[in-house]
Amino acid sequence: MVEPKQERAVKTRDDILRAAALAFDELGYRGASMREIMRRAGVTLGAVYFHFENKEALARAVIRAQPEVMVPRVHSQGLQRLVDLSLVWAHQLNVNPLLRAGVRLAVEQRSHGIEDDTSFYEWEKIFQGWLEVAREQGELAPGVEPEVVAEFVVGAMTGTQQHAHLTGTTASLPQRIVHMWQLLLPGIACAQAAAAIDLDPGRGQ
Amino acid sequence: MVEPKQERAVKTRDDILRAAALAFDELGYRGASMREIMRRAGVTLGAVYFHFENKEALARAVIRAQPEVMVPRVHSQGLQRLVDLSLVWAHQLNVNPLLRAGVRLAVEQRSHGIEDDTSFYEWEKIFQGWLEVAREQGELAPGVEPEVVAEFVVGAMTGTQQHAHLTGTTASLPQRIVHMWQLLLPGIACAQAAAAIDLDPGRGQ
Repeated sequence: MVEPKQERAVKTRDDILRAAALAFDELGYRGASMREIMRRAGVTLGAVYFHFENKEALARAVIRAQPEVMVPRVHSQGLQRLVDLSLVWAHQLNVNPLLRAGVRLAVEQRSHGIEDDTSFYEWEKIFQGWLEVAREQGELAPGVEPEVVAEFVVGAMTGTQQHAHLTGTTASLPQRIVHMWQLLLPGIACAQAAAAIDLDPGRGQ
Repeated sequence: MVEPKQERAVKTRDDILRAAALAFDELGYRGASMREIMRRAGVTLGAVYFHFENKEALARAVIRAQPEVMVPRVHSQGLQRLVDLSLVWAHQLNVNPLLRAGVRLAVEQRSHGIEDDTSFYEWEKIFQGWLEVAREQGELAPGVEPEVVAEFVVGAMTGTQQHAHLTGTTASLPQRIVHMWQLLLPGIACAQAAAAIDLDPGRGQ
């Protein structure tokens, strides 16, 4: 009878994480109390503290959950996979509070005294992996370093999201990401690979 | 005798602005009190409130002062000017607390309840202007829209700065900006113009 109990614990943890994300997204880090999160998750305060030591631990978990929500429905690899991941990310930011709260917390963490650069490195690792596949497939332009591209793209996506958000145009994010690839592909991909990439924002849905 | 008095007022306002920037940069928006800013500026609390209604007004002034500190020493125009401005920005962020505080506040503004997207639009306007010059000079690749490039570059620079900052590698910012242009130039400039651009980070000093 150990299995169902563990499953229940995993589900409870997940419910709390989602409730916390919704609360952080709506009320900000400071505005969201552990009590409010408990109320939204429909669990006891004891359950919240059983899974997360304090609000900061919850915020870190929300920040780190970012890459998990990013699974493209379309099968792809190499450069197209990178593009698809960025399009899923742009779409999910408009519809998924867990991702939105994770990005918001990652960006504002300094003002809350949280220091956690894990999510940046996670993204970079994932992007770099697909860029290495792209290189093996002969998609990259000569001299292009997967590491340099991964680092730049993660920074550019972070800033593009923020710029869209602060200027009140988050809905434009998928189109902005398409623009990013239109500007970047000539510099990172060989002409044949660049021409083959599908930049339809619908791939992110 | 009106002139000297006005000059003094301008200087006092400037001193307060710089003191506030130093305080915001070191202590964060919440940590910096009006009293602390007064102490650092070497003025009375009355003088601070004469020039700035409250801390939020000071923060907005610091955010808006960003483009003013960005004057490249090297003469240039078109695409090279855009590159030079970004290199000055990358260098100044490491040495100029007024710029650093402005960027930090612009990025974290939501968590402080300030909403001010002026600095983003200011940057965009400046960049778009030079991109239009670049187009007139025949530097841009066919079909490249100054507006789209300006919007993307402002977002990418914001995110690159933040990514460098959160991963504790702010000193790498000039090199990251060089990487950005290496990746972007093939997509936005015609081959001849791209080859003529000088990406020496020393141009920003």
